[in-house]
Amino acid sequence: MSEQWLTSLITETAQEGYELAIKLSRMGIKYTQPDEEIRGKIRPVYGENADNLIASSQVIATNFQTVSAANNYWRN
Amino acid sequence: MSEQWLTSLITETAQEGYELAIKLSRMGIKYTQPDEEIRGKIRPVYGENADNLIASSQVIATNFQTVSAANNYWRN
Amino acid sequence: MSEQWLTSLITETAQEGYELAIKLSRMGIKYTQPDEEIRGKIRPVYGENADNLIASSQVIATNFQTVSAANNYWRN
Amino acid sequence: MSEQWLTSLITETAQEGYELAIKLSRMGIKYTQPDEEIRGKIRPVYGENADNLIASSQVIATNFQTVSAANNYWRN
Amino acid sequence: MSEQWLTSLITETAQEGYELAIKLSRMGIKYTQPDEEIRGKIRPVYGENADNLIASSQVIATNFQTVSAANNYWRN
Amino acid sequence: MSEQWLTSLITETAQEGYELAIKLSRMGIKYTQPDEEIRGKIRPVYGENADNLIASSQVIATNFQTVSAANNYWRN
Repeated sequence: MSEQWLTSLITETAQEGYELAIKLSRMGIKYTQPDEEIRGKIRPVYGENADNLIASSQVIATNFQTVSAANNYWRN
Repeated sequence: MSEQWLTSLITETAQEGYELAIKLSRMGIKYTQPDEEIRGKIRPVYGENADNLIASSQVIATNFQTVSAANNYWRN
Repeated sequence: MSEQWLTSLITETAQEGYELAIKLSRMGIKYTQPDEEIRGKIRPVYGENADNLIASSQVIATNFQTVSAANNYWRN
Repeated sequence: MSEQWLTSLITETAQEGYELAIKLSRMGIKYTQPDEEIRGKIRPVYGENADNLIASSQVIATNFQTVSAANNYWRN
Repeated sequence: MSEQWLTSLITETAQEGYELAIKLSRMGIKYTQPDEEIRGKIRPVYGENADNLIASSQVIATNFQTVSAANNYWRN
Repeated sequence: MSEQWLTSLITETAQEGYELAIKLSRMGIKYTQPDEEIRGKIRPVYGENADNLIASSQVIATNFQTVSAANNYWRN
């Protein structure tokens, strides 16, 4: 992907970190299926499917571990 | 999401940390499906489905790893 | 949940730590489905289902990582 | 469980550590389904099912992370 | 595999690290199914399947944890 | 298993580490299903199944985390 979309894992707040984890999760799907049109068709399907919603939250949780560690858990 | 819902990963007790992990898990679903009405329809489905309940507990466990590390496991 | 069920991640032995991991895993299900009657109906289903049993063991393994780290792996 | 089955996460070799990870994985199933007869019926099913075999290997991998960290990866 | 495809986990930027995580995820599939023709048949299937896309993003997230830790989260 | 198959988690290169992660993943299946003939029947099934291939890559990713940490990410 020639586009630059990730410059740093450091965020100011925990919530911004969580939102970066969401972005990382979505980019995993985008790299696997680069065709915007196909992703657009799938989105309403998994948005109403409990399995898919929980699995999406699992991916976000995994990426949030990474972002949280990178930021020393915004302890200070 | 313009609403502020996460200000810190630090909690006073392990149980509050567990409850924060639950909140993080739910927010992953909320960001993926922002429509409250649709989420309301799905909730009774996965609440009675063993696969979904176990998968939800898996997401919580993953987020609890993050919150526990952030709090140095409430060792002191 | 107003009930206090988790006061510490520290346990005396590794086996007690494993049993705490099981408790954490069950609480994830309990928070997601607070209705005891519904959980009671689901229990015999997943107790005889290989997918569910393995997935349960996965949740326990994830929580055991947390509890083990909290206890410095009971190295001493 | 009154029986003592886990006294330490420390093992002499990496292979023994892997085998302890397998034991931890099996105990997760045993605690969830304590009835030996039911587990005996399920075993031949998941032993021939690709999904179940891969998921079992996933649980073992997760527990092996814990055991490996406990043993400082048997570096010395 | 006699071909050399991985020389280092160190990357200059976080985005390159994410792209290395994608490569690691794909190699896991390639080692499991070395036949290029069979992989070519499966690719369009999982590229349009929400379960598969989310699961792919999960594998990438897991590998990104490894690459991020290797690079000290590109903190400097 | 009386056979010795794992003597160390230390490898010279990152790629050898990845290949050790594959071996660990396969051994998880072998310990769960020791019968070579049954495994031989299952192999062509999951080798053409997108779910199984992605799940296999997930197990490898998890084991690669362990091997990478053991080797300090081959940083030097």
